[in-house]
Amino acid sequence: MRLLVINSNTSVSVTERVAEAARRFAASDTELVFATGSFGASVIATRAEDAIGAHSTLDLVARHAGDCDGVMIAVSYDSGLRAARELIGKPTLALTEASLLAALTLGSRTGLVIWGHGVTSLYLEVIDSYGLGSRICGARRVDLPIPDGPLAERRLNEATLAAARDLIEKEEAEVIVLVGAVLSGRSIDLEPHLTVPVLDGLRCGMPMLEAMVRIAPRTATSGSYAFPGGRESSGLSVELSERLARVR
Amino acid sequence: MRLLVINSNTSVSVTERVAEAARRFAASDTELVFATGSFGASVIATRAEDAIGAHSTLDLVARHAGDCDGVMIAVSYDSGLRAARELIGKPTLALTEASLLAALTLGSRTGLVIWGHGVTSLYLEVIDSYGLGSRICGARRVDLPIPDGPLAERRLNEATLAAARDLIEKEEAEVIVLVGAVLSGRSIDLEPHLTVPVLDGLRCGMPMLEAMVRIAPRTATSGSYAFPGGRESSGLSVELSERLARVR
Amino acid sequence: MRLLVINSNTSVSVTERVAEAARRFAASDTELVFATGSFGASVIATRAEDAIGAHSTLDLVARHAGDCDGVMIAVSYDSGLRAARELIGKPTLALTEASLLAALTLGSRTGLVIWGHGVTSLYLEVIDSYGLGSRICGARRVDLPIPDGPLAERRLNEATLAAARDLIEKEEAEVIVLVGAVLSGRSIDLEPHLTVPVLDGLRCGMPMLEAMVRIAPRTATSGSYAFPGGRESSGLSVELSERLARVR
Amino acid sequence: MRLLVINSNTSVSVTERVAEAARRFAASDTELVFATGSFGASVIATRAEDAIGAHSTLDLVARHAGDCDGVMIAVSYDSGLRAARELIGKPTLALTEASLLAALTLGSRTGLVIWGHGVTSLYLEVIDSYGLGSRICGARRVDLPIPDGPLAERRLNEATLAAARDLIEKEEAEVIVLVGAVLSGRSIDLEPHLTVPVLDGLRCGMPMLEAMVRIAPRTATSGSYAFPGGRESSGLSVELSERLARVR
Amino acid sequence: MRLLVINSNTSVSVTERVAEAARRFAASDTELVFATGSFGASVIATRAEDAIGAHSTLDLVARHAGDCDGVMIAVSYDSGLRAARELIGKPTLALTEASLLAALTLGSRTGLVIWGHGVTSLYLEVIDSYGLGSRICGARRVDLPIPDGPLAERRLNEATLAAARDLIEKEEAEVIVLVGAVLSGRSIDLEPHLTVPVLDGLRCGMPMLEAMVRIAPRTATSGSYAFPGGRESSGLSVELSERLARVR
Amino acid sequence: MRLLVINSNTSVSVTERVAEAARRFAASDTELVFATGSFGASVIATRAEDAIGAHSTLDLVARHAGDCDGVMIAVSYDSGLRAARELIGKPTLALTEASLLAALTLGSRTGLVIWGHGVTSLYLEVIDSYGLGSRICGARRVDLPIPDGPLAERRLNEATLAAARDLIEKEEAEVIVLVGAVLSGRSIDLEPHLTVPVLDGLRCGMPMLEAMVRIAPRTATSGSYAFPGGRESSGLSVELSERLARVR
Repeated sequence: MRLLVINSNTSVSVTERVAEAARRFAASDTELVFATGSFGASVIATRAEDAIGAHSTLDLVARHAGDCDGVMIAVSYDSGLRAARELIGKPTLALTEASLLAALTLGSRTGLVIWGHGVTSLYLEVIDSYGLGSRICGARRVDLPIPDGPLAERRLNEATLAAARDLIEKEEAEVIVLVGAVLSGRSIDLEPHLTVPVLDGLRCGMPMLEAMVRIAPRTATSGSYAFPGGRESSGLSVELSERLARVR
Repeated sequence: MRLLVINSNTSVSVTERVAEAARRFAASDTELVFATGSFGASVIATRAEDAIGAHSTLDLVARHAGDCDGVMIAVSYDSGLRAARELIGKPTLALTEASLLAALTLGSRTGLVIWGHGVTSLYLEVIDSYGLGSRICGARRVDLPIPDGPLAERRLNEATLAAARDLIEKEEAEVIVLVGAVLSGRSIDLEPHLTVPVLDGLRCGMPMLEAMVRIAPRTATSGSYAFPGGRESSGLSVELSERLARVR
Repeated sequence: MRLLVINSNTSVSVTERVAEAARRFAASDTELVFATGSFGASVIATRAEDAIGAHSTLDLVARHAGDCDGVMIAVSYDSGLRAARELIGKPTLALTEASLLAALTLGSRTGLVIWGHGVTSLYLEVIDSYGLGSRICGARRVDLPIPDGPLAERRLNEATLAAARDLIEKEEAEVIVLVGAVLSGRSIDLEPHLTVPVLDGLRCGMPMLEAMVRIAPRTATSGSYAFPGGRESSGLSVELSERLARVR
Repeated sequence: MRLLVINSNTSVSVTERVAEAARRFAASDTELVFATGSFGASVIATRAEDAIGAHSTLDLVARHAGDCDGVMIAVSYDSGLRAARELIGKPTLALTEASLLAALTLGSRTGLVIWGHGVTSLYLEVIDSYGLGSRICGARRVDLPIPDGPLAERRLNEATLAAARDLIEKEEAEVIVLVGAVLSGRSIDLEPHLTVPVLDGLRCGMPMLEAMVRIAPRTATSGSYAFPGGRESSGLSVELSERLARVR
Repeated sequence: MRLLVINSNTSVSVTERVAEAARRFAASDTELVFATGSFGASVIATRAEDAIGAHSTLDLVARHAGDCDGVMIAVSYDSGLRAARELIGKPTLALTEASLLAALTLGSRTGLVIWGHGVTSLYLEVIDSYGLGSRICGARRVDLPIPDGPLAERRLNEATLAAARDLIEKEEAEVIVLVGAVLSGRSIDLEPHLTVPVLDGLRCGMPMLEAMVRIAPRTATSGSYAFPGGRESSGLSVELSERLARVR
Repeated sequence: MRLLVINSNTSVSVTERVAEAARRFAASDTELVFATGSFGASVIATRAEDAIGAHSTLDLVARHAGDCDGVMIAVSYDSGLRAARELIGKPTLALTEASLLAALTLGSRTGLVIWGHGVTSLYLEVIDSYGLGSRICGARRVDLPIPDGPLAERRLNEATLAAARDLIEKEEAEVIVLVGAVLSGRSIDLEPHLTVPVLDGLRCGMPMLEAMVRIAPRTATSGSYAFPGGRESSGLSVELSERLARVR
């Protein structure tokens, strides 16, 4: 199985971190292909950057997904997820959706620990758009900068644990989902220090994407996920433009 | 008052039709500026094109909104609406949201007549994302091609009326919203042939945008609509890149 | 354009305050007609008074709306709003609905600062009845008396700001709506002291009602907003009784 | 136990029909007091009449509920229900709420057979305002006139049965609620001809009101159902005005 | 009228306490039959014990409900409620549902005081499964052990009052429901110390079950509550197996 | 990896069919253990049988799950799913939940084709209890008997296809989930005859369970899924009783 893992922003260093985590959680015989956005935000953090990132996701899918069996959008806003499903017609997951689906099977009340400032509302909208809002019992922000050394790492982990404990104690959270690229990959290390399962995007997403590839659902030819093909466009990358134009 | 009216796809002919309708519904002393997308779909119809269109919306806002008091996104998927609000911090509306807000004040049950094939699901997602789904009593598709003459025009109008009547009779619709660029502007002409108010995007959107400009809410400096500024990006238009980089 | 502005309680002093604010927010060429309830509560504060106020709203509409183009119910419980729409068949708005509709276009999470004691539940019911409850992120009460001097004014403003800040900080509110007659008109003055847009009923309602009058939707002749006419009644004011009896 | 049964419209003949049914369903040792509205619609059918009827309900409660243990509002729109609860502070039920509560205990999916034209939307709003909308699987209208003889009676019963069968077959209704004064009292006779329980307002409401009186909950002195007392009003009946003014 | 009151766990002492309370709240001429589970948990507290308790409920219904007019499941998780309704086809209530139905008629916002540790999530699921979740404004846990003397009793009562006051003050609860066997029966004594109605399961359930028996709805022969009969089983009690096998 | 696959009813022939499908969809190096209920319904079809089946699920988990890494409850009502999660604290899935989770990633609107009579309501309750009801666009019943030969097989497949086509055409379903043991395993064969993905329980459940085992979430020690241990019981199988009694 060959999977495309997309970083929709333009930071190669982010792609490298994603690649390390993705390899850790993918099956040993899964081949992984990584791609970094060629335009857009250095780091996706705002609504505008998320919207540009969705375009970047599509661009990367058009360039690289052709000989892959599935696509992982390694962005915590899940930028362009549904559009990518329509465009490529192969199993496609993204970080936040994947961790929420896994969480559904582990507890009735999911608490979110969100990295970042002023983005809770945006994440909750993403989750509501999946119809999963009723399973969220609360959210807590962790507002620290990206850690630049062991001390900062420890402070971030401690703030994350404190937020999770608050959700468990006050909101009766039965499973914790870590949201945001900076928290991704930390769930395994933090889990022993809490009393409920803790999840993050790549840890859940890689095995679940492999599962979806094995389930091998057919591509839709009706409905809003059926890409009609034969679409005219201009000003896009050659690959995306050709993909849009391709006869279904 | 000076308003920017955006067509996020690349068809100048669509912009011209939009301009005609926008001028009809705007106040006589409102100055209108029109802008057409410089990249993306010729006509936005699919999820992928909508995602690219959101980027185009932001690009147009960055290029043209600087000296305007408000922005109308004249796309029926409301492509990039919330991201544009964040980016520009001025009153910004879009077609489907505007007609739904007006509909809320006219009946308890809104019926949708949607032009296009396979897009009902996408429109309902847009509406649910506004938290307005509970007011929708049903949707009907009108699947005819863009009319190319008086006969086709008549057939389209008749199909639209039939769909609306079905919603009124079977779903107890108390107000009808016409959704989709091709139906936009038809509500005034069709209304006398039905028994409930009929609305479309520009007819509702232009007066409501003018109202929002007069209400003159402040720009947010906290929350997910507060654009932080100082953002790094690459591969975007100069204007959009500079807008993202500007210090707030 | 000629608009009827209704005060459904019997306090002429309240009507005078409403008139001052309404004139401030209406367009300069809009003619305003004001009417005060002829029966019912001196000030509407309880469920029973709201119910009586709804009757008063209808009575005032029957007496005064005949030669008006639209109606503003200047009561924060929106007393009798839907019944008035049915009775008169012209654009009709009310304070809380109008400010909520404007808020929908400014942030994803609306926080309510409510003036009064024990009425949160009643306001939330009104908002839920509009299908807009999912957009409310929280409510805070301001329980101070009607201010009787500059000091009390200042205390009220400070309490309102504190409540709004709490909603912004703890509930991630992205727009604040001031609810209750005493807070109405304060949003413009308080807005600069907060980080998100702040709205109130007349500031939003007057421009939006003017927009609805310009949209000029037809009167329904089917559904629950189509007044059948020819209704028998007794014990009501002559005007209301005649209005109910009028052949459609 | 002494119960007040209110007819909020002004038709004594309606009160007589209500009285007959209420006596049939009340316990033999329950004393019933009946009251007819002194103002408002001859028959409540529209939104405006419902709003006036709510005032009438309060007026009747103020006049007659003083020495009663509970109140039944025998109007299918439940006009003034919550306001009456606040005003009187004693167990108070109304027709549609009572039959829905009983239905909740008999099936997962409640189907509504509604008598009347153009009122489905209004009834669904009432039910949604109780938070019970998710249990409704569908509604069917019966649009026949009030029957004036055995033949018309039979036609009405047959139309009701047909509507109920349609709900059972197509919407998987597991319990049927008959809504509207004309259908009230028919559920017992129609039930044997269907395959699921059939309910109506007085049949459910009288025993449930007696149950609530026996449960004997305390009167609230906080929250939106705690009547503050000491309220100023004018232009109301002496009894209602005094009730509002009474010190709690 | 003859009612079966079921204790689905195996503790005879619990049945005795239930019996005492049930007799207090039932009508004087109602005959009560009590039954204790013959297998399962000594005290039902966990999800697994609740699932086993549902089987026990059915077993007890099969053994004892034959000559009864209605069934009260005196377990606060309402274990097996819907399955029992299907099996027996007679009015059947359970503690938490009954107290919630009564609460619906007394306030708009219901606060829950829940006895036990880690079970809030389970109770909220039960309540959501009834479609009543939107009426709950908050929940508070009381985590004390089963009281073993007057001092412990007092501490439990005080903790319950404190939790209720917190719900009234912070969540604007307008009615309090005590949830959990240990709190059952305390509502009458605690009510005078609070400002809103306080309810518990047997106090509400006994009169409401009597009301449902008097309403006398027919047994369903279609839908998911129509027991088909003629079912094959093995390894169950003779009575339950015969009940499942009985021709409808 | 070693997985327990549970058939909670007592038909060994059903277990054999389940085993065949489970082996087909599990990874080649996954070891599967199968277990059949030792008491309860021959075939689970009714609410009562589902409740007894939940007990049977727990009994089988207690007997066989000790040395397994995860549990698949191969019952379409997902009988006892949450209780089993609490009892065993290892990844546990069931048929309907698993196929719905996969469906969430393939289309916005899921249509259900349900095998069986009168059980739609029960399945919708199960799905609502997962918080996933908003993603369901409609359900269709297939009421044919269990096929007993090639002709009956063909008729069943054709009825299933017809139901799916109706959901796609009329309800705009974008993914179809086959619900009920008899339809399980058919999705792969039927998919090519439709225009959207078609899923069933074991096809989705086996790979997803393997994914969850690889994600390896910790066992909860707080919340409603943390089994407290040390529980007293009687009348249960030795294994279940010991499992309940085991110190955590």
